[in-house]
Amino acid sequence: MLYDLRMASIPDPSYYEILDFGYVELIDFFGSDLDVVNSAKVSFASQKQEIDESCVGLINYLVKNRHATPFEHCVFKFRIKAPIFVTREWMRHRWSSFNEMSMRYHKPNKIDYYVPAYSNIRQQVGKPGAYVFQEIEDPLKKEIYYKNIQEVYRVADTIYNYLIEIGIAKEIARIVLPVAQYTEFIWTVNARSLINFISLRNEQNAQYEIQQYAIAIEELFKKTMPISHEAFETSGRLPI
Amino acid sequence: MLYDLRMASIPDPSYYEILDFGYVELIDFFGSDLDVVNSAKVSFASQKQEIDESCVGLINYLVKNRHATPFEHCVFKFRIKAPIFVTREWMRHRWSSFNEMSMRYHKPNKIDYYVPAYSNIRQQVGKPGAYVFQEIEDPLKKEIYYKNIQEVYRVADTIYNYLIEIGIAKEIARIVLPVAQYTEFIWTVNARSLINFISLRNEQNAQYEIQQYAIAIEELFKKTMPISHEAFETSGRLPI
Amino acid sequence: MLYDLRMASIPDPSYYEILDFGYVELIDFFGSDLDVVNSAKVSFASQKQEIDESCVGLINYLVKNRHATPFEHCVFKFRIKAPIFVTREWMRHRWSSFNEMSMRYHKPNKIDYYVPAYSNIRQQVGKPGAYVFQEIEDPLKKEIYYKNIQEVYRVADTIYNYLIEIGIAKEIARIVLPVAQYTEFIWTVNARSLINFISLRNEQNAQYEIQQYAIAIEELFKKTMPISHEAFETSGRLPI
Amino acid sequence: MLYDLRMASIPDPSYYEILDFGYVELIDFFGSDLDVVNSAKVSFASQKQEIDESCVGLINYLVKNRHATPFEHCVFKFRIKAPIFVTREWMRHRWSSFNEMSMRYHKPNKIDYYVPAYSNIRQQVGKPGAYVFQEIEDPLKKEIYYKNIQEVYRVADTIYNYLIEIGIAKEIARIVLPVAQYTEFIWTVNARSLINFISLRNEQNAQYEIQQYAIAIEELFKKTMPISHEAFETSGRLPI
Repeated sequence: MLYDLRMASIPDPSYYEILDFGYVELIDFFGSDLDVVNSAKVSFASQKQEIDESCVGLINYLVKNRHATPFEHCVFKFRIKAPIFVTREWMRHRWSSFNEMSMRYHKPNKIDYYVPAYSNIRQQVGKPGAYVFQEIEDPLKKEIYYKNIQEVYRVADTIYNYLIEIGIAKEIARIVLPVAQYTEFIWTVNARSLINFISLRNEQNAQYEIQQYAIAIEELFKKTMPISHEAFETSGRLPI
Repeated sequence: MLYDLRMASIPDPSYYEILDFGYVELIDFFGSDLDVVNSAKVSFASQKQEIDESCVGLINYLVKNRHATPFEHCVFKFRIKAPIFVTREWMRHRWSSFNEMSMRYHKPNKIDYYVPAYSNIRQQVGKPGAYVFQEIEDPLKKEIYYKNIQEVYRVADTIYNYLIEIGIAKEIARIVLPVAQYTEFIWTVNARSLINFISLRNEQNAQYEIQQYAIAIEELFKKTMPISHEAFETSGRLPI
Repeated sequence: MLYDLRMASIPDPSYYEILDFGYVELIDFFGSDLDVVNSAKVSFASQKQEIDESCVGLINYLVKNRHATPFEHCVFKFRIKAPIFVTREWMRHRWSSFNEMSMRYHKPNKIDYYVPAYSNIRQQVGKPGAYVFQEIEDPLKKEIYYKNIQEVYRVADTIYNYLIEIGIAKEIARIVLPVAQYTEFIWTVNARSLINFISLRNEQNAQYEIQQYAIAIEELFKKTMPISHEAFETSGRLPI
Repeated sequence: MLYDLRMASIPDPSYYEILDFGYVELIDFFGSDLDVVNSAKVSFASQKQEIDESCVGLINYLVKNRHATPFEHCVFKFRIKAPIFVTREWMRHRWSSFNEMSMRYHKPNKIDYYVPAYSNIRQQVGKPGAYVFQEIEDPLKKEIYYKNIQEVYRVADTIYNYLIEIGIAKEIARIVLPVAQYTEFIWTVNARSLINFISLRNEQNAQYEIQQYAIAIEELFKKTMPISHEAFETSGRLPI
């Protein structure tokens, strides 16, 4: 019966395309809002068979009062493809598990590099920690941006392939590749740590690119644990 | 298909009685030996559809060389009942999640207290860290042990109930209860941290009582991830 | 110069008596408010030589916006003596390090047991998570409480000593001892995790006894990192 | 007196130059071999005033039997400058704290890029996980390597600066920069987690570049905690 509950809660779709070559896919999951309730109710040696109004109240109480441990018994496993500069922020979330593609060990047939969409080429506006997302207005500057970043990608990619070809070790050939390069990884994370991630990364001061991933992850969280998600919203979207 | 694999790997039985009133129950799980392989193979951007000989070799290589992260993507959720003196050791395993019955909030109708089996009443033999399990030989001493510990339980239990009855707060009535008292908790833990637990607790220098729990947990680990378990055995049962 | 700063910030006294036999002692420390500032300013590749107004603003900004990592570079080491029922709550704070006296290995000459002060014998009032501290009014009930808990301690202590005397292993003799028993431990914790502890334990819904420890720890935090402490207060005393 | 011990153990030098532009500097520390002993001896409610032969035996026993927690009460704080591809490996060590320079917030006046020394330009030899360090023999290939990686750095650097100049946001200008770029960070880590780092990174299968950092860190560990270091060596340099 546990398993019916769980399988029911795997959302469809569980796969989201992000940016130009990236994606987020939920590949495994256990837990539910009911599991949060029952993990909390262990304190009272009692259990619920199904979600009712009192459960909604309890989940809201837990979030509001930072009683975070009951959320740790729901666990998500994702497969993700993202640019290196995004993963560098992501892997600072230490209460979770990562395995990533290694450019020491693996030479991809084709490397993908992130190119921002036309409307996402932005100016430097605002102060650190409070940047304002403002599109570059001058179309010429956009052209310059495109032409130039792609020129770097072309040069770096060509040279990387050439160095491999003449027998240079992969681990020191790859050092020329830009942080716009896409990489792939597995991420296993419990709902508490996931909430922390969403709180910090689906937030206006997070960089636009990681925010796109955080939006997809929040959507998957909302679909699997709708009551917990709403409690998170209601309490001000703080880490717990 | 992922789910077939996973459901297939939930062992039957998943519930073990431990000591006189305790138990270990595996209530949820995701992962498999194949998931370990595929988490490791993310490094090479490759995947396996099923376990073959090369997978066995890879898992052994990972354990032997302490490449532990691929084991973190398999996650177990247990429900456990154990004496407080056992849980005090258990909850020192920090890379995992706990929710426990609270005697501040809950007064059980009947409290269970651990009484060792006849053959488990042991003498003080050996040095700290290298105790030798040696049964008390004198049957009279066993009788004394039984009569006396049960006398403490009786007095403490009676007084606890009486204090509650006259209106004393649960949180300061419970302070008289002995560490032999059984408690219940939920434990969510990944396979890496589980291996660490087994390595330290299903071991001759661990106290007999926690070892009984660790044996059951090792059995459940072995049934769900037999190749990983064998690699752990082969490599000398060290933490990874 | 780093060391002058640090030594200056070791408060005097660094030792507080808690409850009837307990204590908290700060035995080592590195860091300061200035270290928080400079850890944050690594982002900008800049550093401050001393605290000024802008530093105060930055620390408040960090706390308010849950930019918690700069607080992790200040680390405290405490020596603590507390009843087992208190340490059971304490050791659930996993992002920190513990070493504790072991009753498997060590038989104290004299065991201390917690007896609440006269004014701390409280009734059961309020709901779980929102208990109201209300003294028992009837002096007779207080007498009953005292007489009875001390009777449990006396019986348990006598029997424990007797079981040891006849050669029972320490590890199964100690199981009769009540959770009121005092134990000792070393606790190493960074300022972020310390703030989390204070937020949850120096709080009206925490049990009175652990709150007394949390008050002392907050006092030591305030003396060593006054600006960070004030930012924590101002922002609503939330975990970060 | 604690402080004399501690100050005495800050090694001179505490700063090591690594690779062409990197460094490791120990900027703060508490603990000592004696602190490991005393953290372990808390189990027995006993303490040592100074290191003697029995302490050496105890430390070796702890390492050999993976009793790792006493090593967590010694804490190091480093300042480090390293290429991004090195820090990407480094920041996977989750039981420690990091604050890093941010290219979203900060544009350096001059960016440093890693160029391997002449004798470190190596071929692709061996299998993943068991690479053999073998210098490229053909001097012409070395010339090609140098010319080409520096060409990528030149193009990426020029374009990065140009994009900033025309007003592109730093956070999307920096995406062209290669992972050879140097960055700076603060790392706070306890001795247990440090041993884990050394075990995995000062090891023949680690990439040469991170190994250079791990060698310096091991040297600083050895100078501050010589007995613990020797026990780590003796026991086979495993993680604990």
